[in-house]
Amino acid sequence: MANFVEIKRLSEHVGEEVTVKGWIYNKRSSGKIKFLILRDGTGYLQCIVFKGNVSEEVFELSGNLAQESSVSVKGKVKAEPRAVGGYELDCTDVELIHQSQEYPITPKEHGIEFLIDHRHLWIRSKKQVAILKIRHRIIKAIRDFFDDRGFTLFDPPIITPNAVEGTSTLFETEYFDLGKAYLTQSGQLYAEAGALALGKVYTFGPTFRAEKSKTRRHLTEFWMVEPEVAFYDLNDDMDLAEEFIEYVVQTVLKDMKVELEILERDTTSLEKVIRPFPRVSYTDAVEILKKKGHEFEWGNDFGGADETIVSEEFDRPVLIHRYPAEVKAFYMKRDPEDSSLALAVDMIAPEGYGEIIGGSQREDDLDELLKRIKEHNLPQEFFEWYLDLRRYGSVPHSGFGLGLERTVSWICGLDHLREAIPFPRMIYRNTP
Amino acid sequence: MANFVEIKRLSEHVGEEVTVKGWIYNKRSSGKIKFLILRDGTGYLQCIVFKGNVSEEVFELSGNLAQESSVSVKGKVKAEPRAVGGYELDCTDVELIHQSQEYPITPKEHGIEFLIDHRHLWIRSKKQVAILKIRHRIIKAIRDFFDDRGFTLFDPPIITPNAVEGTSTLFETEYFDLGKAYLTQSGQLYAEAGALALGKVYTFGPTFRAEKSKTRRHLTEFWMVEPEVAFYDLNDDMDLAEEFIEYVVQTVLKDMKVELEILERDTTSLEKVIRPFPRVSYTDAVEILKKKGHEFEWGNDFGGADETIVSEEFDRPVLIHRYPAEVKAFYMKRDPEDSSLALAVDMIAPEGYGEIIGGSQREDDLDELLKRIKEHNLPQEFFEWYLDLRRYGSVPHSGFGLGLERTVSWICGLDHLREAIPFPRMIYRNTP
Repeated sequence: MANFVEIKRLSEHVGEEVTVKGWIYNKRSSGKIKFLILRDGTGYLQCIVFKGNVSEEVFELSGNLAQESSVSVKGKVKAEPRAVGGYELDCTDVELIHQSQEYPITPKEHGIEFLIDHRHLWIRSKKQVAILKIRHRIIKAIRDFFDDRGFTLFDPPIITPNAVEGTSTLFETEYFDLGKAYLTQSGQLYAEAGALALGKVYTFGPTFRAEKSKTRRHLTEFWMVEPEVAFYDLNDDMDLAEEFIEYVVQTVLKDMKVELEILERDTTSLEKVIRPFPRVSYTDAVEILKKKGHEFEWGNDFGGADETIVSEEFDRPVLIHRYPAEVKAFYMKRDPEDSSLALAVDMIAPEGYGEIIGGSQREDDLDELLKRIKEHNLPQEFFEWYLDLRRYGSVPHSGFGLGLERTVSWICGLDHLREAIPFPRMIYRNTP
Repeated sequence: MANFVEIKRLSEHVGEEVTVKGWIYNKRSSGKIKFLILRDGTGYLQCIVFKGNVSEEVFELSGNLAQESSVSVKGKVKAEPRAVGGYELDCTDVELIHQSQEYPITPKEHGIEFLIDHRHLWIRSKKQVAILKIRHRIIKAIRDFFDDRGFTLFDPPIITPNAVEGTSTLFETEYFDLGKAYLTQSGQLYAEAGALALGKVYTFGPTFRAEKSKTRRHLTEFWMVEPEVAFYDLNDDMDLAEEFIEYVVQTVLKDMKVELEILERDTTSLEKVIRPFPRVSYTDAVEILKKKGHEFEWGNDFGGADETIVSEEFDRPVLIHRYPAEVKAFYMKRDPEDSSLALAVDMIAPEGYGEIIGGSQREDDLDELLKRIKEHNLPQEFFEWYLDLRRYGSVPHSGFGLGLERTVSWICGLDHLREAIPFPRMIYRNTP
């Protein structure tokens, strides 16, 4: 394979002469020495070009390299604790691959619109690289968690035939001779079919909301993971959500120290994400709001501000369960002890990051579900296949959804979801 | 957590009394004994209900359980090599969770349209469960392969602003006030931006083709994995593709024996998927066709039938490289030794499963790329961001795409892609 060494593997080559390929991230000069900081996607490396060690052309080239020019450098690997990454290269040769045009993103401050316009280049900067690597590690932790526990990945369709809850927040497309189809908002209904076939499943894919919402917490295209388990009730579901979030957060803290440092993330709050998490009922959460002097009427749904106030009572994510059925989806099972309540649960992240998980036990009784579909004025014919799951061996089952970008944003400590995904899609932006 | 045992974990409970929850897959009766075959998504279990060991009600219930009824059974775990899965349950109790209505899918033969209409139930059958588990294992193998080699997962956008190569095979949607947008056909162009930021990346997500093609090898929605590596040339790319396919196939053979047996897959050919794979140039492949008596004019693209004929010359996947540039995409680099050729590679699976990988070294010269964009009559303004990758530190880079469902279909030995994904989408079908 390729005959060059990645920067992050230099520790295996101390004292050897190697070739490294990458881009000029930064450089400075000091008399007879040029210092080139190289990035290659795996790390950063200081290359020392000493006038006495290279040809005149190479020394001159080293002084003329524009930011982001691509080069192949040769030299001896030296351990150097003071250098970025812990190693240095004593160069014997520098070969230009491509001299960059004047790079638009400089160390000076840029406006956010300018940066997103240049997202294809912005992702090369240190902070963005760190975020994208943490995103990857979070995704891997999510998948490992479910894979290790015997879940089967179950990819739901993206193109769906029916507008489950009205078309106002759906992207639609013409589907050949079959009329309009819609981009999925959630794989959950399909995951339920999967759970009754495979026991424990999870979906993990892009989902879409054509919401005319410009807040920093909304993307029109975002990734969601949705586990669904047969024979689980609401308590089992909360246990699973808790174990899951603890695993993801602690794994990232353990494996991504360098990247979290680059982001200057204060991890004090994340370190406390250890089970058990506090669990309060919706009704108790309303009491918390009132006790803190906030007006709130029982029966309303929580807004982001309400969630934050409740979450500030606790030092780790809080599970709020048993919401008024009125504010929740038709497929949620009613609480047998109080039929005005849905067996729903939301998990609110600390530090004001809001809802990261929404889940519930699902209605498993055919007649009850039919009643809800009528009450919500939903077209029953679109749900016949979903109703079949209650006709043929119905079982109690539960699941939840986790928004990936919200989780990335929380763990990385980002202000806005747009940096939590390679190419964000928002109401006013679908480029580059 | 949940107080029942999964069937695949019964080996840890031999001699113990446990509770198992699942669905009646099959049953038979023999005087004082009812045999219930339970499925729970993790396996199959024979439950012995002996009249003398249970109450009269339970014995009667056991005789009246309809196919797919859900039950909770209690009993002692016995090792029994002759039984399905190797264990049996000596029942002390059977509790009905839900008596199923008459199940539409019976052991008799059903037409394919009927089965896809009932895809939400069809996925419960033994063969479909085996396919979905192998699909999951393939996905995990794909991710592990790249994760273990230091690739960063890089999710490209699904909603894209421009119709890269004409709109005829694109699904389109209105994007707020920004006009029409399109569902992605490939994440490659974005992956190239990722590779220049992160070195080695891979995308893995759904892609869409609104092709009016009804063949068994086409879905309108399918998953694709696309690695992209900075500083890789076509040879490195072929090495990577080869190592990748060997790893995926051998991992599935090792880990999914039970499921491959359920599918009655003859694995002789798969066992031979060991590096090195044969590599032939397009020109040599044309010679093979001619030698075998098939008319074929140099310069045309291969059809599925041509691929199969070439692949039959070899006992493992074959890499065909250096195609006429005319039949390949605009972004492929020309062969420096013959500019009529593109540095492209396709990998053809054995046994007539066709192209599973398509890749290339990418054009990294700004002027050449501009020329291609003009030649292909593509709107340059849509490609400015992509051209930027050649303005700011351009480097040689290469990648390929693998169609997931084609791979599942090949490894499982399926006739049609529609069984390789939970809910297939085809030109005449977007339900359930």
